[in-house]
Amino acid sequence: MEEMINFTVGPVMSDDIVKKIGSQNTPYFRTAEFSEIMLENEKLIKKFAKASADDKVVFITGSGTASMEAAIINTLTENDKALIINGGSFGERFVQICNIHHIPYDEIKMEMGHGLTKEILDKYDNKGYTTFIVNIHETSTGVHYDLDLIHDFCKKNKLFLIVDAISSFLADEIEFTHHGIDIMITGSQKALACPPGISLMVLSKKAQKRIYDKETCCLYLDLKEALKNGERGQTPWTPAVTILLQINARLKEIEVNGGAESERKRIKALADDFRNRIKNYPFEIVSDSMSNAVTPLHPLNVSAYDIFLTLKDEYGIWICPNGGELKDKVLRVGHIGALTISDNDKLFAALDDMKKRNLL
Amino acid sequence: MEEMINFTVGPVMSDDIVKKIGSQNTPYFRTAEFSEIMLENEKLIKKFAKASADDKVVFITGSGTASMEAAIINTLTENDKALIINGGSFGERFVQICNIHHIPYDEIKMEMGHGLTKEILDKYDNKGYTTFIVNIHETSTGVHYDLDLIHDFCKKNKLFLIVDAISSFLADEIEFTHHGIDIMITGSQKALACPPGISLMVLSKKAQKRIYDKETCCLYLDLKEALKNGERGQTPWTPAVTILLQINARLKEIEVNGGAESERKRIKALADDFRNRIKNYPFEIVSDSMSNAVTPLHPLNVSAYDIFLTLKDEYGIWICPNGGELKDKVLRVGHIGALTISDNDKLFAALDDMKKRNLL
Repeated sequence: MEEMINFTVGPVMSDDIVKKIGSQNTPYFRTAEFSEIMLENEKLIKKFAKASADDKVVFITGSGTASMEAAIINTLTENDKALIINGGSFGERFVQICNIHHIPYDEIKMEMGHGLTKEILDKYDNKGYTTFIVNIHETSTGVHYDLDLIHDFCKKNKLFLIVDAISSFLADEIEFTHHGIDIMITGSQKALACPPGISLMVLSKKAQKRIYDKETCCLYLDLKEALKNGERGQTPWTPAVTILLQINARLKEIEVNGGAESERKRIKALADDFRNRIKNYPFEIVSDSMSNAVTPLHPLNVSAYDIFLTLKDEYGIWICPNGGELKDKVLRVGHIGALTISDNDKLFAALDDMKKRNLL
Repeated sequence: MEEMINFTVGPVMSDDIVKKIGSQNTPYFRTAEFSEIMLENEKLIKKFAKASADDKVVFITGSGTASMEAAIINTLTENDKALIINGGSFGERFVQICNIHHIPYDEIKMEMGHGLTKEILDKYDNKGYTTFIVNIHETSTGVHYDLDLIHDFCKKNKLFLIVDAISSFLADEIEFTHHGIDIMITGSQKALACPPGISLMVLSKKAQKRIYDKETCCLYLDLKEALKNGERGQTPWTPAVTILLQINARLKEIEVNGGAESERKRIKALADDFRNRIKNYPFEIVSDSMSNAVTPLHPLNVSAYDIFLTLKDEYGIWICPNGGELKDKVLRVGHIGALTISDNDKLFAALDDMKKRNLL
């Protein structure tokens, strides 16, 4: 079978160097050799996130949700008051996590497809918040929020800032120290373009202090254990070793190819090419503030989910469907992973053919 | 570089079919195709665990510890009273989890290297326990506990039975229904011989009822979500898709080769061969009740950790070191994963050479 082309938002396609590591046996990991690799992973993530010397990186074997929950339960208490940007199912997930763990919060329910504005944030000025929580790219609807605006607001209100950048890291500009971020989350299967199974967090000094001050309420997600073991390049529990080796190879490859900025430009070029060409097809872009990682589209004539199924079953192409009430209305086309302009060509050729067959 | 031979207790070596899947792109997974694979995984795990039609299997992206904690927090409450077999660092981990989550418990601290006896258990008869928790193979010290004894005790005392069989499943006899087990845990990187990153649980009807009756206290480890999504062969969060595909290939391979019983016999033959031959070397076996998965050894003349380092650095062989106070005293040789008698030959050739060099 010919290999599928993957335009989803993750898992995405991997480079040969990542796939080669997947083809090998997993090494034993309680060794100096593996510790060295983990410390290099930390160093390169910090470099690409533009973090500072005192910041730390921890790696969790789990999906992005594991790190979202770990961030909340290790740093917030019932004495905090969080402000959550809720613009879709991932914002809703932070709300759910705060509910389960009795963290006081208010949420800003965003209108679908729209970015943040200063006017929206101004209403929440000086209201006693301690913490700001945002999925900087609300992947479910393809809306990217303005980090400069958020940074200004947090600085003015002295807020602890938690940024889920799972699908945004390496695709959009994000500067950990400059933007005053305390926790930044990402995952292995997005722009890092490795198999899913690892999520990771960059932690500021302030975040580390909050972690050490708080009593453990979940052993597996305890970041005190992760930080302590991380000092020597290890993890408290057996991690997804192979994926951590793949992340290492991928980070070094990005470094060799010019670093995070070059990777961002590469992804942006793919997104720009796609967005220019999709104008001639019966779709409407449904976000006024996009990440480079994904384009959310509303098909004008047919069901979004039907397009997903036809592309998958008849053209060997995955695009990303939506769930729930957006299922028939919205589909998403990703620009991360080992994609090229020639893959865009193949997607548009498929759309041309579908148009001819009256399937668009 | 020639590939290392891996005699650790996990991650272990994988078959070609598993490595081939690792060499491929991760597919998009919110599809009917992936659901089918997951339902097949559930079916084969249930078959190999000798579970019943009403039992369910859930897959957690995380290490074994994630499933150990998920088992406790989803089924036990402050009204339970658990009896924990604590024979090493994995028994201690259950104690730690019960402490964090305020689950009342008593522990039976086992003497190192010794199995359970009826006399030990009899002392805990009729003491108001609701739950029995055991690492059936305490991997840290290589002691395998008698499941028939435990089953009799639990039956008599009507106990909910949680069995961590992480390193024992497929290596030792275990019959979910016959042994009255309510939760059985295992992981991808032990006898399943896939990369680490997935742990899984078989859940009895009684366990499922406890799960649905209990309020969620951790979103990521919420087994209600896992069970609900599992009905349609999906997971609530993006799972380690590649490892789940590898588990599928491996389960089908075991099935084709005669099922769980054949795999157990294959592992036992490797363990028996090793145990017969190690008698002629300056080691003492330090367990009176072993799993087929691993042989724990005390070297009579030199440091256990030095042997680990020499084999790794000079012979291309990993054996499993111990941590903490056992570091210099005990090492472990595993018999799970894609090992053969010819690998045993290579290990003994290395030991012969070390003997000549006065390193044993």
